[in-house]
Amino acid sequence: MEPGLQQTISLLARTPVALDALLRDLPEKWTLCNEGENTWSPFDVVGHLIHAERTDWIPRVAMVLEFGETQAFAPFDREGHARELHGKSLAQLLDEFARVRSENLDKLRALNLRPEDLARRGRHPSLGTVTLSQLLATWAAHDLTHLHQISRVMAHQYQEAVGPWRKFLGVLDCAGHSSSS
Amino acid sequence: MEPGLQQTISLLARTPVALDALLRDLPEKWTLCNEGENTWSPFDVVGHLIHAERTDWIPRVAMVLEFGETQAFAPFDREGHARELHGKSLAQLLDEFARVRSENLDKLRALNLRPEDLARRGRHPSLGTVTLSQLLATWAAHDLTHLHQISRVMAHQYQEAVGPWRKFLGVLDCAGHSSSS
Repeated sequence: MEPGLQQTISLLARTPVALDALLRDLPEKWTLCNEGENTWSPFDVVGHLIHAERTDWIPRVAMVLEFGETQAFAPFDREGHARELHGKSLAQLLDEFARVRSENLDKLRALNLRPEDLARRGRHPSLGTVTLSQLLATWAAHDLTHLHQISRVMAHQYQEAVGPWRKFLGVLDCAGHSSSS
Repeated sequence: MEPGLQQTISLLARTPVALDALLRDLPEKWTLCNEGENTWSPFDVVGHLIHAERTDWIPRVAMVLEFGETQAFAPFDREGHARELHGKSLAQLLDEFARVRSENLDKLRALNLRPEDLARRGRHPSLGTVTLSQLLATWAAHDLTHLHQISRVMAHQYQEAVGPWRKFLGVLDCAGHSSSS
């Protein structure tokens, strides 16, 4: 397998395990906290990651391979994870994320993508032409964006509690810089 | 135990497991990467966390309880982790971090801190008066600062690879905002 793809898969495979280690059975003070109105808690983020597994990454890989640039991807619904969360516990979401991620990595490996495949092009509904290679790199970078977000959201709960140390703790000044994907 | 302290301990106990899940056996492309000259890799960060376990948190807790504000803490050496790293593999560092963190949480629990203890004051060499409660909150927030940093450093490696998706990936625009603790 192409080395860059192998490295991306090794990262993608670890995210569910790392989130499980960080969040499972953690008090709800941490798992349901957010940064204020219309912001996400770690619980919401796990739902969003599941939703992206179902509707974004592998479906878009299939679109590139089948239609190239002739058909744009369906836009990703950034609020679409509400359905994933309904009536579920965080433990159920973590299990579900691990399952769908594992299934999707099996599908990705089964494609046996060659370097020339990674250069194939698709069409993003707002970004225009993108390559399969860029899509796969974005999948992994998107995991890291949300790990970055979860650590920031949890740290936010300590904003006052740390007192004068606040000025040494960069995460408390992180503005989030998130957007839709 | 005071609920806030219990919640802080539950977070502190998870960091070594989460970093282990994320980093162990990951290709060196991720574990040794950084953001340029004089910046830290995930490997460096784990060494720094070990160094802080040895010289910062519990030693400062002991200083507050023994000397109050009459003696300032020793300044923390932000480059002091070089000794921790020397000749070690990441796997060894992860094992060491889990061990020293676990020992330190045992020491913390054994202190049986009461709410009035948490209000006790110590003296930081540059910040001045701080409370034990602030010190313990900073211990946990410091973990989150470095989880935030590790996710940012790893994402940095995808800066070019994601192509036009870059504008949707907030982590790639995170300026770091770190400082010494």
